[in-house]
This record gives sequence, structure tokens and C-alpha cells, in this order.
Amino acid sequence: MQIAVLLYDRFTTLDAVGPYELLARMPGAETVFVAKEAGPVRNDQGSLALVADRSLAEVPRPDVVLVPGGPDARVAMDDPEILDWLRTADATSTWTTSVCTGSLILASAGLLKDRRATTHWLAFDELRALGVEPTGERVVFDGKYVTAAGVSSGIDMALHLLGRIAGDETAQTIQLLTEYDPQPPYDAGSPEKAPAAIVAHWRGGKVPVREG
Amino acid sequence: MQIAVLLYDRFTTLDAVGPYELLARMPGAETVFVAKEAGPVRNDQGSLALVADRSLAEVPRPDVVLVPGGPDARVAMDDPEILDWLRTADATSTWTTSVCTGSLILASAGLLKDRRATTHWLAFDELRALGVEPTGERVVFDGKYVTAAGVSSGIDMALHLLGRIAGDETAQTIQLLTEYDPQPPYDAGSPEKAPAAIVAHWRGGKVPVREG
Repeated sequence: MQIAVLLYDRFTTLDAVGPYELLARMPGAETVFVAKEAGPVRNDQGSLALVADRSLAEVPRPDVVLVPGGPDARVAMDDPEILDWLRTADATSTWTTSVCTGSLILASAGLLKDRRATTHWLAFDELRALGVEPTGERVVFDGKYVTAAGVSSGIDMALHLLGRIAGDETAQTIQLLTEYDPQPPYDAGSPEKAPAAIVAHWRGGKVPVREG
Repeated sequence: MQIAVLLYDRFTTLDAVGPYELLARMPGAETVFVAKEAGPVRNDQGSLALVADRSLAEVPRPDVVLVPGGPDARVAMDDPEILDWLRTADATSTWTTSVCTGSLILASAGLLKDRRATTHWLAFDELRALGVEPTGERVVFDGKYVTAAGVSSGIDMALHLLGRIAGDETAQTIQLLTEYDPQPPYDAGSPEKAPAAIVAHWRGGKVPVREG
């Protein structure tokens, strides 16, 4: 089973690495990071580059496609070469997946038409503008299309996928080995739970810390 | 505030990227990935390389040191150049931190003597052999030394650190923007919670999926 993780300029790192860390541990999985050209691709923060080992052309038929988001997802949404690769890969994929604003890229490629999907809570209007109504769930399955909410939700998505692909025991084993027993010291991880003032500040578009 | 993330051959990716994703969003933070030599460093799975933008020598006095673990942490534990850098950086750091078996590396550098600390649950004996009793907590603070349990626990560590460094509101804001509202579909993230047969299998040292 080949898993291809798409990289493009200014992607959000944890969107890609969260699910990668879990999926890559699946017995029989071969994971490959791909980009328009093989080589380092710099992230949204500017302080880290991940190496794409293969170009898009070298990985035409992955079994699983994983598209991370980023605050500048338009880099990929406006790139015909990336959208063409997504459509081609999707034609034969078993699972086509995204994290955060990665779903805007899938929608731009025409792959989420009439599908249930989600994205980062700050990008709901952008997903709607592409003709897809965000469900607001953390992980959304619709056939072979799986979309996750913001950044860290990709880890939950990966556990769901592992269960579907490899069964509960493998998923539980990988949860145990990555000690995914979350104990955040705050309960502010969604707009329903975070302090209202912080949510209002962000809905107002004032940006002290980057969205990602 | 300069945050240095140490890379070495066969590090575990999420150990580094989980806390990085949150800490790098802190206003005023400058994050830099460092290794013995600048350039790509390949991870434990073999399928991904992260680029260290700076050599150890170029980053002698970070404010925060972050050491990821890996199934082959001995790569770093046995490397005098890495241990020397850790001791030098620690002499002036505000926070010295690790995730997973990264604490074995800190202990090898002599930095956890008489400290409370933790590591991946499968590495408790190795930490004891270095003279440090693992507490079994998910995140352990002892003065400026902060150690986290396995792989994904670094995300919780980062939230704790953000609260201490930048205050609750910044930590909550970053939790909201990364949508860290965990909803794992299984409750198998610790040896106390996972199915007993899986835990026994791993305690017995049979390794169908890699520890990391």
C-alpha cells in the first residue's frame, strides 16, 4: 500500500506529519512525500523544510493520497499541475484524504462535488465558496473521501483510517506506541470550547498568531 | 526567544514536529532545526528527511532546547559532539526539554541527575539504567527541565510550556488555531488503557510495528 503525502510551498507541517507518523507505522505501508519537484519544500512558518523524495510524475498511482493544508493553500489551489496530479491519483486511489485547508485543494480539483467534508473552522466560508458545505465534524468520511478539521485533527483521522484499512488491533497498537493519550492542560481546541473573546478576535480577522 | 530543535539520524518525526508546530506560533519565537551538520536528516521510518538549517556550532545559546526521541536514540547518546552541545546549550537555556526517548539523551549528557523525568513507557528501564527514575506522568516539569512521554505527548508538553512562557491566553489561542481538541476513536494510548494482550506482546519485546 503506497501512501503519498503532498507537499507544496508554505504547507502546515503538523497537517502532514501528524497522520504520517501513524499511517507510516502500518505493516506493509510505503510512504512517500511528493512535490512538483523532488527536493526540500519550506513550510508556512518558514523555519522548516521537509524533503519530497519524489516528484508528482514519479508517483502517479498511490493507494492513499494525503493533502495537508496551509494558510496559503491557494499556492496549490491555483496550480494546474498539482490539481491534475490530484485528479489522476484520485482516479485509482483507495482513499483520498486531506487535513485542514487541504480540503480546499481537493475541492478546487473538483473531487468533493456533492460530498460531505470539513476544513479548519476559520476556512468554512472558503469551502462553501467552492460549493462544499462544511459539516463541522472533526473527521468526515464520505465514501473514499476523508477530510479532517484543523491541523492536529489529522492524527484522529489517521487512527480512523488505520482501523478501516488494517483493523482495530493495528490501530490500537499504533495509538499505544505513539502514546496518543491526549491530556491538554486547556480545553480551548474548538470555537465552541475556547474563550469567547479569543474566538471573536479571530472571527474578526485580527491575526496575532498565524492560522496555519 | 530562540528555540532549537535537535535532529539526528533516525529521530522520530512527530516527537520534533508536534511541539514545534505549537511553539513556533508563539509571538517573538525564532525556531531553528539544528544537527551536527546543516542539511537533510532522515527519520526513523526512512521515508522522510527534515532539513536542519543550522549546524550545532552555529546555535550555541538557544533559550529553549528540544530533543526528540527515536527507536535508535543511542545514535545521539553515544555521540560526544551532540552531548557536548547539549551541555553547553543547557548552561544558558531557559528551558531544556525532551520528548519520548529524548530524555535518554539528556540523561546521557548528565542533565537529569537527581531530576524527576519521564520517557516512552517501553524505555522506562533504559532511563533507570541511566540513574533516572521515570515518573510515569505524561509531562514532567522539574525546574527548567521538561520531559514528555511517548511521541504524541510532546504536543501536550508544548501547551504547558506556552502557558508558562507566554501565558494562558496565548496557549489557548494556539490550541484553538491548531484545533487541538482530540477525539481519538480508540482509548488505547497508554499501557493502562490499551488491550492487555497488545501491551503484553510489546513488553515481551516482539515488534510487529516499530516503537519510535
